[in-house]
Amino acid sequence: MILIAERINGMFKDVKQAIADKDKKVIQDLAKRQTQAGASYLDVNVGTAAADQQATMQWLVETIQQTCATPLCLDSQKPDVIAAGLKVANTENGIILNSTPLNKKTDDKILDRYIDMANQAGPKAGIIALTMDKNGVPQDIDTRVAIAAEIVSKAADMGFDPQRLFIDPIILPVKVPDAQAQPTNILAAMDQIKLLADPAPHMTVGLSNISQGATERSLINRIFLAMAVSHGLDSAIVDVLDEELMNVVATSEMLMNKQIYSDSFLKAYKGT
Amino acid sequence: MILIAERINGMFKDVKQAIADKDKKVIQDLAKRQTQAGASYLDVNVGTAAADQQATMQWLVETIQQTCATPLCLDSQKPDVIAAGLKVANTENGIILNSTPLNKKTDDKILDRYIDMANQAGPKAGIIALTMDKNGVPQDIDTRVAIAAEIVSKAADMGFDPQRLFIDPIILPVKVPDAQAQPTNILAAMDQIKLLADPAPHMTVGLSNISQGATERSLINRIFLAMAVSHGLDSAIVDVLDEELMNVVATSEMLMNKQIYSDSFLKAYKGT
Repeated sequence: MILIAERINGMFKDVKQAIADKDKKVIQDLAKRQTQAGASYLDVNVGTAAADQQATMQWLVETIQQTCATPLCLDSQKPDVIAAGLKVANTENGIILNSTPLNKKTDDKILDRYIDMANQAGPKAGIIALTMDKNGVPQDIDTRVAIAAEIVSKAADMGFDPQRLFIDPIILPVKVPDAQAQPTNILAAMDQIKLLADPAPHMTVGLSNISQGATERSLINRIFLAMAVSHGLDSAIVDVLDEELMNVVATSEMLMNKQIYSDSFLKAYKGT
Repeated sequence: MILIAERINGMFKDVKQAIADKDKKVIQDLAKRQTQAGASYLDVNVGTAAADQQATMQWLVETIQQTCATPLCLDSQKPDVIAAGLKVANTENGIILNSTPLNKKTDDKILDRYIDMANQAGPKAGIIALTMDKNGVPQDIDTRVAIAAEIVSKAADMGFDPQRLFIDPIILPVKVPDAQAQPTNILAAMDQIKLLADPAPHMTVGLSNISQGATERSLINRIFLAMAVSHGLDSAIVDVLDEELMNVVATSEMLMNKQIYSDSFLKAYKGT
């Protein structure tokens, strides 16, 4: 499973403070700990408080790269912030641009711009594309699948391998009124999205969104992850420092026959 | 979710010993504890050691009924043992006959016999029918679904409501060589079995089978349960005394929108 570690994000207090103080140690510790915990990529999000988002993105990228070589997942809705990160990021081991909708009212060609940037970043660069368009986040199954199909089609038209696409069907918090029906819709959408190309595009979710504001956050995250893996999810933006969650990842992969069963399958997954 | 509590089974040492000693207290304690933990039904299985299985089934049924009114799930591959249990069982709150294959080499009409017994046991009597026939347990998806379809069709022919049927696609232990591919096949079979009738037949599994002989038994049980619920499983034979498993049941039901989210959803599920 392609695990994108979520913690280097200016929405978290410690990271926000570290950005304000230019305190490299906090960022580098998170980079190292998340790498050791099994992160395939480190998400890098400047948050909303940074005065100069482009400069902050570059500082975060350089700070992380001084301490580890884990590929990065540059996380911003603003193409200029992604572009700034790409100027200093090492991309030879891979990089993900996170994230773009199909289109926006203010920018009909935003997906094209992310694909262009990924193409320039080399053959291992991926994109997280949200099943969202100028009309916002769809509530139903069919619109999610239709938008995903348009994303896959556009990528193909631009010579971008569907296997470098990560389709994100967008999880809403179960605690939000009227959003509780969303998990079933998302799983049903996944059943169809995985059939849109052969080989299938990757599918990813920002897992922790589902438990935003809820009690039992880790439990809700873990159970939805297990369900989603059984519907084809092969990537997720997660808290890799949550050991119980990582055990669920290992168990899900084993049950889906992607890892051989052995009595030490939990340890085997961690590569220890 | 319809939870069938697994512990009153002569395969467990304490129950085997209690049967040998005619020690009612062990059985009645298990009946009460499982009921308090949220069992919808109590499975009753004499095991293989009992000298007289019919008399033992009757003793277990009577012993349980002296202490609680939870409906029973009479568990035997032998119609005569089920019939003996039915002679003394209270059936007005429901009963399940567990289990029959579609047919056997030695008994082509075994499903008919279970349906006849259930029909005589009243309008709330259910049957657990295994996706298994005279050729044994199928390894693939299509044969499981084909057998399930024959079961549903036979039930309809005999005037037995599909909603009183519990189809069990038979889980094999992930630790058994060559059986690790089974969980994905079972989930795929469930996707189709739930479409065989409208309203759908129930689907159930003997959950603990999947982790037989494995390390991390509870974790494997929990993760497969979450996956299966997201593919339509609405019943399971489980260890209701496993609190972590019960939390997964509650979380799965909430995520599948069968229970309203509240901050106390875990407690709400237990009815406390």
